[in-house]
Parts: sequence; structure tokens; C-alpha cells
Amino acid sequence: MSVNSFGHLFRFTTWGESHGPALGATVDGCPPRVALEPAMIQQWLNKRRPGLNKNTTQRNEPDSVEILSGVFEGQTTGTPIQLMIRNTDQRSRDYGDIVNSFRPGHADITYHQKYGIRDYRGGGRSSARETASRVAAGGVAREAIRAIAPGVQIKGYMTQMGAKQIDRSRVDWEEIDRNDFFCPDAVAAEEWEAYLQWLRKDDHNSVGAIIEVVARGVPAGIGAPIYAKLDTDLAAAMMSINAVKGVEIGEGMAAAALTGRDNADEIFMGADGPEYSSNHAGGILGGISTGQDIVVRFAVKPTSSILSPRKSIRMDGSSTEVITKGRHDPCVGIRAVPVGEAMMACVILDHLLMDRGQTGGERGVIG
Amino acid sequence: MSVNSFGHLFRFTTWGESHGPALGATVDGCPPRVALEPAMIQQWLNKRRPGLNKNTTQRNEPDSVEILSGVFEGQTTGTPIQLMIRNTDQRSRDYGDIVNSFRPGHADITYHQKYGIRDYRGGGRSSARETASRVAAGGVAREAIRAIAPGVQIKGYMTQMGAKQIDRSRVDWEEIDRNDFFCPDAVAAEEWEAYLQWLRKDDHNSVGAIIEVVARGVPAGIGAPIYAKLDTDLAAAMMSINAVKGVEIGEGMAAAALTGRDNADEIFMGADGPEYSSNHAGGILGGISTGQDIVVRFAVKPTSSILSPRKSIRMDGSSTEVITKGRHDPCVGIRAVPVGEAMMACVILDHLLMDRGQTGGERGVIG
Amino acid sequence: MSVNSFGHLFRFTTWGESHGPALGATVDGCPPRVALEPAMIQQWLNKRRPGLNKNTTQRNEPDSVEILSGVFEGQTTGTPIQLMIRNTDQRSRDYGDIVNSFRPGHADITYHQKYGIRDYRGGGRSSARETASRVAAGGVAREAIRAIAPGVQIKGYMTQMGAKQIDRSRVDWEEIDRNDFFCPDAVAAEEWEAYLQWLRKDDHNSVGAIIEVVARGVPAGIGAPIYAKLDTDLAAAMMSINAVKGVEIGEGMAAAALTGRDNADEIFMGADGPEYSSNHAGGILGGISTGQDIVVRFAVKPTSSILSPRKSIRMDGSSTEVITKGRHDPCVGIRAVPVGEAMMACVILDHLLMDRGQTGGERGVIG
Amino acid sequence: MSVNSFGHLFRFTTWGESHGPALGATVDGCPPRVALEPAMIQQWLNKRRPGLNKNTTQRNEPDSVEILSGVFEGQTTGTPIQLMIRNTDQRSRDYGDIVNSFRPGHADITYHQKYGIRDYRGGGRSSARETASRVAAGGVAREAIRAIAPGVQIKGYMTQMGAKQIDRSRVDWEEIDRNDFFCPDAVAAEEWEAYLQWLRKDDHNSVGAIIEVVARGVPAGIGAPIYAKLDTDLAAAMMSINAVKGVEIGEGMAAAALTGRDNADEIFMGADGPEYSSNHAGGILGGISTGQDIVVRFAVKPTSSILSPRKSIRMDGSSTEVITKGRHDPCVGIRAVPVGEAMMACVILDHLLMDRGQTGGERGVIG
Repeated sequence: MSVNSFGHLFRFTTWGESHGPALGATVDGCPPRVALEPAMIQQWLNKRRPGLNKNTTQRNEPDSVEILSGVFEGQTTGTPIQLMIRNTDQRSRDYGDIVNSFRPGHADITYHQKYGIRDYRGGGRSSARETASRVAAGGVAREAIRAIAPGVQIKGYMTQMGAKQIDRSRVDWEEIDRNDFFCPDAVAAEEWEAYLQWLRKDDHNSVGAIIEVVARGVPAGIGAPIYAKLDTDLAAAMMSINAVKGVEIGEGMAAAALTGRDNADEIFMGADGPEYSSNHAGGILGGISTGQDIVVRFAVKPTSSILSPRKSIRMDGSSTEVITKGRHDPCVGIRAVPVGEAMMACVILDHLLMDRGQTGGERGVIG
Repeated sequence: MSVNSFGHLFRFTTWGESHGPALGATVDGCPPRVALEPAMIQQWLNKRRPGLNKNTTQRNEPDSVEILSGVFEGQTTGTPIQLMIRNTDQRSRDYGDIVNSFRPGHADITYHQKYGIRDYRGGGRSSARETASRVAAGGVAREAIRAIAPGVQIKGYMTQMGAKQIDRSRVDWEEIDRNDFFCPDAVAAEEWEAYLQWLRKDDHNSVGAIIEVVARGVPAGIGAPIYAKLDTDLAAAMMSINAVKGVEIGEGMAAAALTGRDNADEIFMGADGPEYSSNHAGGILGGISTGQDIVVRFAVKPTSSILSPRKSIRMDGSSTEVITKGRHDPCVGIRAVPVGEAMMACVILDHLLMDRGQTGGERGVIG
Repeated sequence: MSVNSFGHLFRFTTWGESHGPALGATVDGCPPRVALEPAMIQQWLNKRRPGLNKNTTQRNEPDSVEILSGVFEGQTTGTPIQLMIRNTDQRSRDYGDIVNSFRPGHADITYHQKYGIRDYRGGGRSSARETASRVAAGGVAREAIRAIAPGVQIKGYMTQMGAKQIDRSRVDWEEIDRNDFFCPDAVAAEEWEAYLQWLRKDDHNSVGAIIEVVARGVPAGIGAPIYAKLDTDLAAAMMSINAVKGVEIGEGMAAAALTGRDNADEIFMGADGPEYSSNHAGGILGGISTGQDIVVRFAVKPTSSILSPRKSIRMDGSSTEVITKGRHDPCVGIRAVPVGEAMMACVILDHLLMDRGQTGGERGVIG
Repeated sequence: MSVNSFGHLFRFTTWGESHGPALGATVDGCPPRVALEPAMIQQWLNKRRPGLNKNTTQRNEPDSVEILSGVFEGQTTGTPIQLMIRNTDQRSRDYGDIVNSFRPGHADITYHQKYGIRDYRGGGRSSARETASRVAAGGVAREAIRAIAPGVQIKGYMTQMGAKQIDRSRVDWEEIDRNDFFCPDAVAAEEWEAYLQWLRKDDHNSVGAIIEVVARGVPAGIGAPIYAKLDTDLAAAMMSINAVKGVEIGEGMAAAALTGRDNADEIFMGADGPEYSSNHAGGILGGISTGQDIVVRFAVKPTSSILSPRKSIRMDGSSTEVITKGRHDPCVGIRAVPVGEAMMACVILDHLLMDRGQTGGERGVIG
């Protein structure tokens, strides 16, 4: 029932504050005999790391992960895996001016109202830094998936920055890692680059984004009815990421404008089983995978911490204006891409394991 | 860990199939000494009941709820409340033709693939009929909220049918119960009426919808960080409803196109505590309530069961065409309104109770 | 997190009060395609039924179970199974005299102190009648075990009534169902018979008992480390039964008096894998099954409801004397035998399913 | 659903192996604004520390705890508290001889059978070293209890070593910390001292023990019905401790031999509420506290690691004899005392918090 845990059989609990000595994830339920080394996790942490490029915060964290338990001679043992990331760069003074005032759009005020105390250093527990713990847990999930369902591929990318969307006809997965935005459209990537520079330097502003995450090669039949549907768990997974305000599966909100005839994914018999004429459903029917691509999208709001002054109040109720200097991403959505990938990996692994417990992993025969 | 349960301290488990003898909800964690009678729950079931009006399925179910446990002399005792609804109208023959074939857009095929068996009668467990159990549980939640947080008001309504949206300037909560669509805009309601008649009678088609649910008067400070955020739980709650493909909090997906300056909800000190210049956040910051309206929206896909033929396959893999006769809503979104309200009520109550366990319900002082 | 649920993947929630309209169990996580009919569950309910014989309460309940969901054409579907038992014989007036007073040794006073309300009719939720729901859930578990681990045998019996113990040299499983006490020792059974008659008729008293439950043929390797150990879950399962005050695995409390040399179960290689020279451990090492008999014992305190007057207080604090007329077992331990068997079955099935999710059910090779 | 977690609202997850780099506990659900410093936790770790005295293993671990998260300026923030203990003294070579053979009475063989891999160094995850993590979590629980229920006192002690029991007439809580055995009977302590020296030096043997833990001053009305009863959770808590084979509440197993008349705790009205003539129930009725002392006992089996040879097998199935040199307690029960206290503290705090969520903490009035 831990409010800081996620998952059913594959379950992780994250801990740590932005400016504490360390943060990490306690990962439980990883199958035994999965090859696991820090480098396998580190590669994903490097993708989200601050200071990665000029478009993300200049804070410089090596974010190097240590495996403190659950691995023996390079293999998982089936016991809890403790992943720890030391906080090495903590310029607390940057945040000193918000000790007594609440930043608009931040959890400062609600944490204070709920707990009567808050770690104001860098947002404490509410900092996006928590997502490093998820990315580490996701790295473990990816290795376990590789071991038990080798065909699965998980890929995330940005489809929109501010009002600027990608051109779906130009999408190329190879392009995603060639630019600073995890953008699958080379033309859009250039446009975004210029826009973001202007936003940060001239406009002292920030902007939102939309991220899409796809899981390819997931077998049909994983998931569960009703309250642990694959889409339910994915919605929770993505909405739990800082600054996320919306989650979509397949057609998402646009499904509202479709008619039943247009929305129908017709079914045909293929060589290796059922095939579909389209994927409006995003690879999930009744909470259970169809074998098609599982497609999730989520919207990240613009960073609340901007250099432009915003009206707020202090703890004593007096009025103030807040300008957040510190080091902040003008588009926090960029770093949300590896986080979304990690959450997708955790949900897919969890349901692969759950399915074995629920059904033994046998499938109903078709054809 | 039950995949058929929802909630933390206030937790319900739904059970039952569309055409079984009965369905219901086992409701656990309702506080003691809450006045509860069947009529208090029945009023909400009546809102979602099939056959309610000419725009929803003609299947006629009284949907009358029985309280089998947890209530003594008109008050809850703190023990599990069993809510049972008998299925009285089960025309199985309507569904006979889909015994061996899979309806496109339905869970028929994925249930078969996962379980190797499915109750094909009316979709069995995957039928929208399951939502009656949620509405019943929500009725209990509403009474408990009334007892422990009397100021809270929960209201749901449709904001879009197909491509046709309401005009926000015409929104009037009084209007919602005056039309068949839970539509707060009288002009839109008329338009929808005509459109829906045409869809069903002439076009033999169905259409999607967007529902908005608002919780007003929720105290600041309920919710929790990270994996049981108020918005995370609401996203899971709404995405778990049949046919829902997207969930939004506050600005939702549109937040992607906003800048940090536009999206900031500035804070001022009011007579009774902090006030905000706007509510882009939808009443939630860092997963914890701000005291503003909590605003959730979700999209419901068009009913998959339509009279127009759609290509599919049979269990033996052979090709077929499916036309779903049966009795189906051309816009299942209409009946999703009371379901969304019920899920909101359950999440709000759960977090009111959780907060007492987490903090004792004390609040950090401001001013 | 439901406090009225038990189990991990195989999880049931019980509901209902002694004198409400019905009680039952919502059973979640039963694998699909398990043959299940009411009679398979009814046989176990009949074993614990009141009025079964002259040594248990004269209250006459048919205790007939209805399956309301989760079964289609005689097979489980993988969806929740609702088991309902109607209460047909509710002589509330028998209990009228304890409306305002608290029975010593009963939960009357603590329920009142916790909830400020209690269903005083027959003990309400705290009545041993709740165990009928467990026995029903156990009946489902037994059928699922038969399907996925056919070799498993579960047997419970009484080893002690009051101070009178069985003679282990006379134990014969065939004898268990031949007497009214589930006693494996025919000689002890006769002695108990006379003793119990005297207790009830002449001494107006009641007595405690010790029950032993054995699971034979459970494969090695199920269970889990630390907080969901097989023995941890069994301890919780048995201690949750009304009136149970102690639980033992293998040597149990007597292990304290043994030395390491005496307590060692030495290991030898047998034809089908490891064998042990003895079973002091009760078939569990480190929370995981060894493949030997899993042996659990629990003590049931004497029925608190006796005809002899006992000092107590009323709700207004005034002194009173309580004599419980009603219909009560002089040795409630007798009926605890099928309850213990049911809990054993639920725990074994749960861990068989969990193990598939944790490891895929593969085993480490020996030899 | 984590099998490595314990508790409901106050929930901790332990991680780490005996000879890994570190071990610890991720503690979730501690209320905010509780004063917490490492020294408050360290005092309890020092009680169970190996090398504490000549009767426990000579392995020398400082066992110093670090708080990595959840505490800000000396107070808890309501976010997860990570407690880490570095392993500083790891003489792996001591254990080299059991790499390929299974120690009788150890989890070596079952871990291998379940996971197909095991960290053989010092028993890995199954080592009693895991209990250090619990003691650390218990230290947090004690401080939270002090803050929200100041009257509560928790005390554990040994009542039996081997066949040698304390004399209840000589029990003196002041004595407990004056000897090496947490023994409340000074005379018994001297006897145990001589016995244990002989066991280790001359007999090369080990012996079991019984530990009793009392919680005094717990308010009436905490706990819950049926599957999260206070006694159910305590049974799970204690049975989850390494080497524990039996758990008793109040009269425990002895309740079987009592009659209803003897076992009745009669109730009287005292100045501050109900009082009882005796405490056979161990302070719990129907799973809910009565306000009397909560009394739990558990039996710890003799250490399996002894210098006397025992027959066993190797991974290849061949026969062998095992003599465990290493450094081991002749009576592991001694160090189980602070562990039992810690588990009691965690359960009591959990139910104090749960009760606020369930009922708001109000009580039914008596008198």
C-alpha cells in the first residue's frame, strides 16, 4: 500500500530528495538469473542526465548508479535490488530564496499544507530528480524483459514541443538519438532547437511537450481486466511522472471525435495469428494486449521555474514575487522521454510476470 | 494485489458478468456510523441505468441494489459492505452469433487469448455492465464524504459528443440533469439529440464523447507524493472505465502547447487561505490538492458494437463479418458520466481517509 | 490493503455478519479453466456446518453456497468468483440480552470501542460464522490445486481437546472422518466424546483444542523470503481464525528446548531428489518448501460463551453478570478443523501461483 | 504485494545480503514532523549487534546506520526514509566450503531449488543479518509512537533458553539490560551463562529459546477485524523472523488446555475505563486492542550452524558431511529479542495510523 511504490509482482519503491545525500529505487520481484551489471542501467540514466546537452539544466550530475543488493556474480538472485545514486552536486544556495515563499506551479505549497514541513532544497521529494530512480528501475526491467520476452522493443520520442508537432510522414526511429530532443523528425528537431534557444535566452520562458512511447513485440494476452488493465497501469505510470497532465492510449482524446465505423480495427488471420487493419486501440483491448504496438502518449506541462517574475505568497501569507534562478530545463519534456520508456518497461515486465501467475502463460488457441 | 479491486483504505472489488445471475461490489474501508440506505445508492444507479432514455440501450434492467452486509440499523459498522445487483433481463440469444467469432474493438479476442475461455454472453466480465458495480460503490463513497467532509460537491457532465463540443460560455450546472446527455449547455444538448438520432437510425453508427468531472470543496492537502498522487489515482480510476482512451487533469494534453508564463497559476492570500489566479493545474500540485476545483476529463471511444458490418475472424481462424445487433448505446459516453462521478467520489474519499492515516489530518499553517 | 482480504495472487475478501441476510467470499485470482461446481465447495461447508452433530451448536443452517460469478459452463473464467451463503436461521432474540452489555472474552467491547457501533446480533462480523466464507474460498482453492498440482493432499485433524492429547502411535488418517471430532486416534475420540458431554451438560463449561493441518505432496521451492514466507503466511492465515491464540510450524514452541544437533534434519539424495532424515522444520526452510509434509498446528481457546455467569459491564459502565444462553459449541475447535484446512489450501495455491510469477516455476537442478 | 515488505500504512521493505556491500530498510509511511536522528536508531542496532558480548557471534560489525532520505533538519518529512547499514566485515573465505553443499536446517537448498542461484556468502538474503534492517525500521517506529502515542512502552526479554525457563515470580524489567541474555530473572541469567559456555566450548552445540515481547499503554480500539487483526499481523511479524517456529498471543498454545470458565477475563469499570480481572487474551479481543498489555511470545529454533558434523548432499547430489566453522551464536534467540521488539513497534505504529484512517481515531463511549 506504499504510496511510494509502483507495480504488482515487479514492484519498485523510490526514495530520496533532490538535495539529500542520495536517492534510489528498491526493486522487488525481478526474476532470478537475469544478467545485470551497473553499465546496463547506467546507459539509461545517461539519457536523462542533467547537463547532457545545452537544452537541459546545466546542473552537472554524473548520476552513477550503484547496485547494493540482489545481484550475485553478475546475475540477479530474485531478492530485492537496491539501486543507489549519490547526489554529488547540491548548490543549495541557489534555492535559498524560496525557503519561505511558494513557487507558483510547484508542490511547495501543497507539501507544506499536507505535511507542515518541506525540504525546500531543490523541491526535495517533489523534484523531477526522483525520475532518475525510475529510470534505474526501468533499466532492470529492460534486462529482465530481454531474458523472458526477447522480442520486445521499447522506444520513446517527443512528438510535440509547445505548439510545434512532428510530421508523422517524416518519422524515423533512427533519427531519435541523433538530436537533443529524442525527436524522430529531423526537420522538426532543427526547428525546436532554434525555438528553445529563443525561449530560454530571450523570452525567459519554458514550454510543454508531448511524448509518445511504443512497446513493440509484446505478446498478445498480457494484462488484466478492470482495475489492473494494461492501459490503467500505463495511465497511472505516466501520470505519476512529474508535470504530466494527460495520458492517452492509441487514439487517446481524439477517440471522442471518431465514429464506431472509423474506429474499428478490423481483424484478419495472419501467418502467426490475428492481424489488424489498424491500431486505433493502441494495442490494448479490454485491458489486455492484442500483440500490436502498445502506444502511449503523455503531455508534460511547461517548467514552472522560469526567470520571469510570478506573483505568490510567503508562509506568513504576505505577498511576494517569485523568480526562479536556479538551473532549469526550458522544456522538461525532453528528459521525460527516457522516464516514459522506463515506466513502460516496468509495466510490461510486471504484466509478463503477472500473466504467468494468473494463467501460467498459456494462450487460447486461434486457428 | 487483486486486479479486480480499486483504492487504498477505501477499497472496492467488483464482481459479476453481464449475463450471470448477479453482479456487485465488495466495499471495504467505509468509516463507521455513516447513515446508509439502499435508496442513497439507488439514485446514482438510476442515472446510469440502461433504458433510462431513448438514447441509451433499450435493455431494461431495474438495477436495484441490495445491501447484504456492513450496515446495521441504517448505519455503516466499519465492516465490508456487500452491494448486489441481480441481473433480471438476460436475452442471451441476442449474442448467440458471436459465440465463435470476435467482435472488432471488443475484448472477445484478448480474453480468449489470455484465458482460453470467455463468457461470450454480452461480453461477460468485459461488459460495460460492470460499471454498475462502481456506481454503487461510489454511492457509498458519497455518503461517507458527506459525513466527514460535508463541503465536497462532485459533478460530472459531457463536454463533447463526436466532434461537437459545448460552448463553455453557456455552461450551467443546473442544465445538466435537464437533458438526456448530462450536458451543461442547453443549445449543444439539442444539437446532440438530433445528431444521435441520425447516427442510430440512419447511419447505423456510434460516436465517442468527452466527460468532465469536477470535485468542488475538497480541502487542500489531500493526496500523496509520486505513486499514489491524487492525479495518478484519478488517471487509473478513469482509464479503468470501459472504452476510455485518454485522461486529462486541468489543462491536460493542451498543457503541451502552453508556456510557463501562461500556465502559471499565481497565488494570492485570501480570507480563508491561499487563492489562485487560475486553475491550469486542475486543483492538484505534486499530487496533492490545492483546495481549488479538482478537474478531470476523459475520452470514451465510440461503441464498437454497431449495425454496420465489420471484418473479423472466428476462433478457427476463418474470416467472417460481424454485425452486432443486440441492444447498444450509440454513444456509450452518456452513461459514463455517472461512472466518472462515482470513481471521483471513491478517489476523494480514499485520500481523505489516507490523509488521516498519513498526517492525522493536521495542516501546515499559512499566514 | 483491504483488512478483510487474504492472499497475494489468489486473494479472497470475506463479507457478511452472523445475522445479516447473507455472507460470502469474493475470490480473486483463481486460474481459468478449472472445473468448478457448487457441490465441490458444498462438501467442505458441510464439514464445518453447525448442527452437524450433537457436539456442535444446535443452530441449524443449511449453509448452501451459490456461485454468483466467475464460472461459465462449469469452468472458472479467471474473473472474480462470488460465493454467497444465505443466512436462513437467525434467532436474534437469543442475543437480545447482550445488546447493552459486553460478553467477557468476546469482541463486543473492542468493536464498540473502535467503531462506536456494533452489530450485536450473534457477534456480527466477529462471529465464527465468518469462517464459512473461508471454507467456501478454500473449496475453490482445492479445485485449482487439483488442476495445477495434482499430487497435493491437505488434511486437518484435532490432536488435543482440553488437556487430553492423542497418542501419536495410534494416528490413522482413515479414522479422522469416522468420528465427530476429526480425531485421528479412535481411542482418544471416545474419551473426548464422554468429556464433552459432561462439560456441556453438567459443567456448563467449554474447552480449548489444538488442530494440526498437513499439506502433503507440495513441490519443493514454493514460498518466498522474509515477509511472504510460506510459514509467515500460514501463521497469519491461522492466527486470523476466530479464537486462535497460537500457531506452530514443525516443532513449533518445542523447538526452543532442542539443541542444534537434535533439531537438524539431515539431507540424503533419494531417487526423486533430496530426502530428509526427519522433519523438525515442518517442511519449510527459509520460508520456502522443502518438498516434505508442511505441518502447521494452532491452538483454539475455549468458547467464551458459556452458561456459567461471568462478571462484566454494560455500555453505561454499570456492573452486570453475563450468562450466554444462545447456541454454542462447547469446543469450537472441532469446527476449526475444516477452517484450518481451507486456509492451508488458500496459502498453498497462492504460493504455487506466486512462484510462477516469481520464477516461471523452473527449479534449480540437484544431482 | 512486495514479498520483501511489511506493514500497511507504516510499511518497510528490507534489502541486502549478509556479505553484499550494504543492507537496509526503505521505510514508508512514517508521519511527518517526528524528530529523528541516527543515534535514535543506532541504540537499538547496538542491542542486536554481533560481537556485543561473548555469547553472540564474534563477527565484529559496527552496524552503523545512515539516514539517506526522508529527514530534513532533524525531522521526518512524510517521505520515504532510507536506512543503510554498510557491511564492513566480510570474511567470505569462512563460508567457502559451503559453495557446493547444502547446510542442514538452512535455506541453502530451498533457495537453490526455487531460484536456481543463491548467494552462498553467509547465507546471503536468508542470513539473520537481515534482521538488522528490521531493527533499524523499528527504531523509526519507536520515535513515531513516542510522538503520537507517548504512553506506549515496548519491552522484550527471554523467558526460556533450551529447557531452562525463568521463574515468573522473579521477573524484574530492570534486570533485563543487566545481563547478556535480556533475561528478567537474575538467577536464571547466571544459570544460562554457564550452560551456554558449556554448549559452545564443550558440546559444540546450540540451543533454542523463547522470547516474550510486551506492549504496555496501547490504547483500546486499535487493530482490525479478520485479516489484519492485531494478532494476525503480530503472528506474521514474528514468524517472519529467521528461525522462528512458533508464535503465541496471551495464553498461546496453553489456551487449548483451559476451560471457558478459567479463560474468561472478567470486566470491571475502572476510573479510566474498563479493567480486566486477568489477561489470558494477551490484550487483544477480535483482533482489536483492549488497552491491557499486548503479550506476544515466539520460539526460536537452535542455530543450525554447529561445529558437530551433519550429513548432507552437494549440488551434484553426492553425499557429504557439513561442519559449519564460521562465527555463529550458540543461541541465536538472544539477538532475536531486539528484533521482536522492533517488529512489535512497527505493528503498533501501523495500527495506530490505520485506526486514524479507518475511524478518525474516535472511540465508542463506555460509562
